[in-house]
Amino acid sequence: MYIPNEFEITDKTIINAFIDNNPFAILTSCNNGKIEVTHIPILRLSDGKLYGHVSKQNNHSCIEEKNEVCCVFSGDDAYISPRYYESEFNVPTWNYSAVHIYGKLKYIDEKERVWSLLEKSTEFFEEKNGWKLPQNDKYKALVEFIRFFEIDVTHTEAKFKLSQNKPDKDIEKVVISLKTNNQNEMAKLMEKYKDKK
Amino acid sequence: MYIPNEFEITDKTIINAFIDNNPFAILTSCNNGKIEVTHIPILRLSDGKLYGHVSKQNNHSCIEEKNEVCCVFSGDDAYISPRYYESEFNVPTWNYSAVHIYGKLKYIDEKERVWSLLEKSTEFFEEKNGWKLPQNDKYKALVEFIRFFEIDVTHTEAKFKLSQNKPDKDIEKVVISLKTNNQNEMAKLMEKYKDKK
Repeated sequence: MYIPNEFEITDKTIINAFIDNNPFAILTSCNNGKIEVTHIPILRLSDGKLYGHVSKQNNHSCIEEKNEVCCVFSGDDAYISPRYYESEFNVPTWNYSAVHIYGKLKYIDEKERVWSLLEKSTEFFEEKNGWKLPQNDKYKALVEFIRFFEIDVTHTEAKFKLSQNKPDKDIEKVVISLKTNNQNEMAKLMEKYKDKK
Repeated sequence: MYIPNEFEITDKTIINAFIDNNPFAILTSCNNGKIEVTHIPILRLSDGKLYGHVSKQNNHSCIEEKNEVCCVFSGDDAYISPRYYESEFNVPTWNYSAVHIYGKLKYIDEKERVWSLLEKSTEFFEEKNGWKLPQNDKYKALVEFIRFFEIDVTHTEAKFKLSQNKPDKDIEKVVISLKTNNQNEMAKLMEKYKDKK
């Protein structure tokens, strides 16, 4: 990902929080020149690895483990019109935030471990006091239809493109324009990173 | 993309409208085994091709044209808890909609054409009576810093995973749960596709 310095995020705490808050990711891989893309929730565990599972009918259930994959996590995005700025000379652009995690995918086929990971995933995605995975054979039988994997991270790229390359007066005006459009999430994020410039 | 029959969309009108409404896409390519991912707005023109541009500093400004790329367009998504359903035996899942366009990327370096495409892009992304690209040298000089491309579509995959594999009573209950969470966009989409089952 092309990341100008102003937009680069290197703080691991921010990157990890971004993944946890935007877990519905895009898994991409390349096998013999064919790009494969799957939309799935990805769980980051404290060992630093990423975990996910797909249906055994998904091509991502049997890719070559030696190849690198990339998990794309995306946050909010917003079109930024040149009309939004205070200053004159600007072009249309898009603000967004994204984290790309490159790594080696390895399948997990050991049933006990798969069950434990399903429990951990459920705990994470459910709210507190939410649904619990029932410990019965009917549910345990479903494990046969999925394949779990872990991704050992090799490289992380994080870009928060939030107009940090613009003067404060422009950022402030863009924030007002976005709020007028009810694009409050992006406006809030821009305000936060304006103070970190 | 793994697409069970219930979730497959083949209607070109629906697919084109989805691209137009979700133009902030993810361009993915694979060059010598390295996956490259760029977040950019993509314009679909009436010739059926996709158009976009990147900074000349972006690796996507100089990939090999013969390789296939994939443009990922994503719509709204929502975690669906087993607690949301009316019936008993369910597992956590995620609802979402996505269109993947595979094609051959070809660079456009002819300045007049690039300018015309920038004008078309601006017209599309700005609202009616919005900002117009000024016809002056200061703006025209910016063309030197970007590279435009077109994608000639080879293959389209479209998946709207909106619980269409569930009975109506479950869909209705999930819709109510999502509305309670203020996830109204996904709720509306599910209602729309429930009637098309």
